[in-house]
Amino acid sequence: MTSSGRFITFEGIDGSGKSTQARLLAEALRARGREVVLTREPGGSPGAEEIRRLVLEGDPDRWSAETEILLFTAARRDHLERTIAPALAAGQVVVCDRFADSTRMYQGLSRGDLRALVDQLHGLMIGREPDLTLLIDMDPELGLSRARGRKGHEERFEDMGIELQRRMRAGFLALAGEFPARFRVIDGGRPMEAVTADVLAAVERELA
Amino acid sequence: MTSSGRFITFEGIDGSGKSTQARLLAEALRARGREVVLTREPGGSPGAEEIRRLVLEGDPDRWSAETEILLFTAARRDHLERTIAPALAAGQVVVCDRFADSTRMYQGLSRGDLRALVDQLHGLMIGREPDLTLLIDMDPELGLSRARGRKGHEERFEDMGIELQRRMRAGFLALAGEFPARFRVIDGGRPMEAVTADVLAAVERELA
Repeated sequence: MTSSGRFITFEGIDGSGKSTQARLLAEALRARGREVVLTREPGGSPGAEEIRRLVLEGDPDRWSAETEILLFTAARRDHLERTIAPALAAGQVVVCDRFADSTRMYQGLSRGDLRALVDQLHGLMIGREPDLTLLIDMDPELGLSRARGRKGHEERFEDMGIELQRRMRAGFLALAGEFPARFRVIDGGRPMEAVTADVLAAVERELA
Repeated sequence: MTSSGRFITFEGIDGSGKSTQARLLAEALRARGREVVLTREPGGSPGAEEIRRLVLEGDPDRWSAETEILLFTAARRDHLERTIAPALAAGQVVVCDRFADSTRMYQGLSRGDLRALVDQLHGLMIGREPDLTLLIDMDPELGLSRARGRKGHEERFEDMGIELQRRMRAGFLALAGEFPARFRVIDGGRPMEAVTADVLAAVERELA
């Protein structure tokens, strides 16, 4: 493994197990002596966490799709500046649970076709893409039942039901086809250990 | 006066008297039987007011210039959707204390030259310009002494001092030259009644 910083993101539908896999990856890399920053979106810096609360709490219709995209992008800009970029500059590995690809899917596809707007805003205000994106692919029925088994107050996106989850799964797979250089699709429907092993193998190739 | 909606904004440096003039204009138009929505930025809708608190409270360096521009644009989008556009559609006059021109100046010029970025983001996410913009022009020494005479917790932008106020005044005048069709420059250094009379005359021409 080299000492240069690397930006690794996890993507997938709710309940796909990506948050658990992100944590396990961070632990495995630390056990191998790498410095790792484990973070997540929306949020990941003090300012971005405040914006996260604005977006995820309250009435689901309190923001239009366009305003929501602006708020997610503001949070991402803060997260990038305050957490991600400094860690990469210090040669650390950044493991991030969701990034711009989630906005491309959830805000870009779930309330009308706003993908072009999301991409233009991303190009203007963010620019940076991950070095490696691990898409934990999963059957939406399984993902939804897992998501509903968890507790938490931020259920807005998890309440959107099976039809949305199917569209998001198809969308993420299409996105992986659109950006093949950085995406790796991992079958998340298998036992956790098998998924973790595939994640680690993909990351080791990236860091080699 | 016709019954179609009209969007009128006030711009100028802090202490120029524009908020007072906006209120007096709204009262004068109501006295003549017009339906008027008096509003202000940042803020002007429940969601935008929440974003306003994020931007104006706390450490002045808590957000980068770019994140701040995104938050102002998110607030403006919400304000436009929830307050301004419905009022205009109903044929009302919207009188707004600060709008996108303030972002062009304060966020576009005060922390590096971000004017092009502000304009691109405005074109992408807002689009709408006022029908009439009243620039209350004032000597910055006078404006600053007036601003400091007021109370309030949102002193971030008013604390930036005389040098910034001079740059903002010059910037607003240049902006009026850039958009002559909608800008009217009014000398705010005169007695209040004279300023109000000029404001009303400009608005009557617009509404005729």
